[in-house]
Amino acid sequence: MSAIKLAIVGVGKIVHDQHLPAIAANPDFALLASASRNNTIDGLPGFKTIEEMLAAAPEIEAVSLCMPPQYRYAAAHAALTAGKHVFLEKPPGATLSEVADLEALAASKGLTLFTSWHSRYAPAVQPAKAYLAAHAPTAMHVIWKEDVRHWHPNQDWIWQAGGLGVFDPGINALSIVTEILPSQVFLTSASLEFPENRDAPIAAELHFQDAGALRVLAEFDWRQTGKQSWDIIVDTADGQVKLSDGGARLWIAGEEQPLDKEAEYPSLYRRFAALVKAGRSDVDVAPLRHVADAFMLGRRKVVEAFHD
Amino acid sequence: MSAIKLAIVGVGKIVHDQHLPAIAANPDFALLASASRNNTIDGLPGFKTIEEMLAAAPEIEAVSLCMPPQYRYAAAHAALTAGKHVFLEKPPGATLSEVADLEALAASKGLTLFTSWHSRYAPAVQPAKAYLAAHAPTAMHVIWKEDVRHWHPNQDWIWQAGGLGVFDPGINALSIVTEILPSQVFLTSASLEFPENRDAPIAAELHFQDAGALRVLAEFDWRQTGKQSWDIIVDTADGQVKLSDGGARLWIAGEEQPLDKEAEYPSLYRRFAALVKAGRSDVDVAPLRHVADAFMLGRRKVVEAFHD
Repeated sequence: MSAIKLAIVGVGKIVHDQHLPAIAANPDFALLASASRNNTIDGLPGFKTIEEMLAAAPEIEAVSLCMPPQYRYAAAHAALTAGKHVFLEKPPGATLSEVADLEALAASKGLTLFTSWHSRYAPAVQPAKAYLAAHAPTAMHVIWKEDVRHWHPNQDWIWQAGGLGVFDPGINALSIVTEILPSQVFLTSASLEFPENRDAPIAAELHFQDAGALRVLAEFDWRQTGKQSWDIIVDTADGQVKLSDGGARLWIAGEEQPLDKEAEYPSLYRRFAALVKAGRSDVDVAPLRHVADAFMLGRRKVVEAFHD
Repeated sequence: MSAIKLAIVGVGKIVHDQHLPAIAANPDFALLASASRNNTIDGLPGFKTIEEMLAAAPEIEAVSLCMPPQYRYAAAHAALTAGKHVFLEKPPGATLSEVADLEALAASKGLTLFTSWHSRYAPAVQPAKAYLAAHAPTAMHVIWKEDVRHWHPNQDWIWQAGGLGVFDPGINALSIVTEILPSQVFLTSASLEFPENRDAPIAAELHFQDAGALRVLAEFDWRQTGKQSWDIIVDTADGQVKLSDGGARLWIAGEEQPLDKEAEYPSLYRRFAALVKAGRSDVDVAPLRHVADAFMLGRRKVVEAFHD
């Protein structure tokens, strides 16, 4: 099979930092073009809209959609309707209902739809999952605290309704939680802190349980200066499992474990190529469903205004 | 097949008004017992908890769960684990994730799980659906405005986080919308009004679209005194369709249509009996998914305090 002819839609920081190197290193893909309102990729034909691009380059077979989630549905629908496979950056959409609609459309057309969750490919994730499958977790504590001014400077869309606020990084934690736990969990209570001048939360505290005795506490905060925390600590009867640095490092019962090198986006593109070749989709909304549940079930608290 | 031995959990107004008459009139069910913190049903053994009831009356084959949604998961899990079929009043849970967990549990045990949506059995619904399948809708306007003091006097749970507020009636409208439309819709913007002393909205304005040209506006309001409105108005190229009184009456192109008598709960129990006999489940979360989407995507506005 020759390389999959790929295009990128929505060219921003994550595309330059992650997508382009991963695609360049993967012989299963040939990057043909991009579409983006304001940006282009050096050396590639650039279009303003996906519609223009698909009309000008009908040989494109697949697209990676990297724009903010509020704009993802229209592009995904246009791509699937034109017969293209679709890779969705996280989160897969602004609503769960639109993802359900895309899933049905992809299935009806025999195309691949891939809801990507890059943090699930962090090197600690599969070893942690294997350990927890053999050693039942009794409690989990998720601490995801970072400085929004550093990581998302002046990104207005992230503060708008639908931009998810602190759940934009927090959903990465939830994508790991839902991957490594041997049981399903669901929210029982939550509190969300909204700056008085913003439509998305700056902090959240989430309490989950499973059908048994497992309890999960997740704390997300965007006001963390100094040391940044992306940690997941799991208690088992046989000792503690700790994933830190977003899953880049792993301790089991106090011992740091040797891990593979970080390769989240290369792994995502390997997975996407395998799905396209197999004619299958991978649509998992569990992390976004927890976020929607948190907005639905959570109590809101208004906190002081946030200015970049 | 002999009658299905049924019990009711969570005995309140809706049980007396709707469930008991529907069950009494249906020879497929024999009502054996109830479990409820504070209430019993005349002439039936009454227990305080579902666990007590299932231990005392193991011959029970199915349960109807009618408590507030925040308490529904634990009871459903206990029932399924004990090998009982489960009928869930609307909404099926406080979160989407817990319903997904119950769906997997029911499937693994070969039991029936039924997410009931009574408004879908209003007499106008199927005739409206048939008309819209043949006459494409171009616009829809949902007006669901009622007086919460009349319909939910002093129901504190409905105002708590997870109680859904005005979405408790609004989800009935959404259950009709998702039943009668020939295409899937998803939310594009929403505003939710929260009384300053409550954790659930008193009003909401929701904007949906489908992949084509259809636009849907839904207005929910709990501050309506005087005339109450439960109307859905759909424009088609061939004239307007109007469902009023929550689907009890139907007009097409200005002509009121003859309809069957209202029989929402009798229809729900006929459906539940058919599912149990067929060994199948019917788990449709689409209405609750729209609600979760509205909480996630919607802008919040704080409005004046509400007192019963």
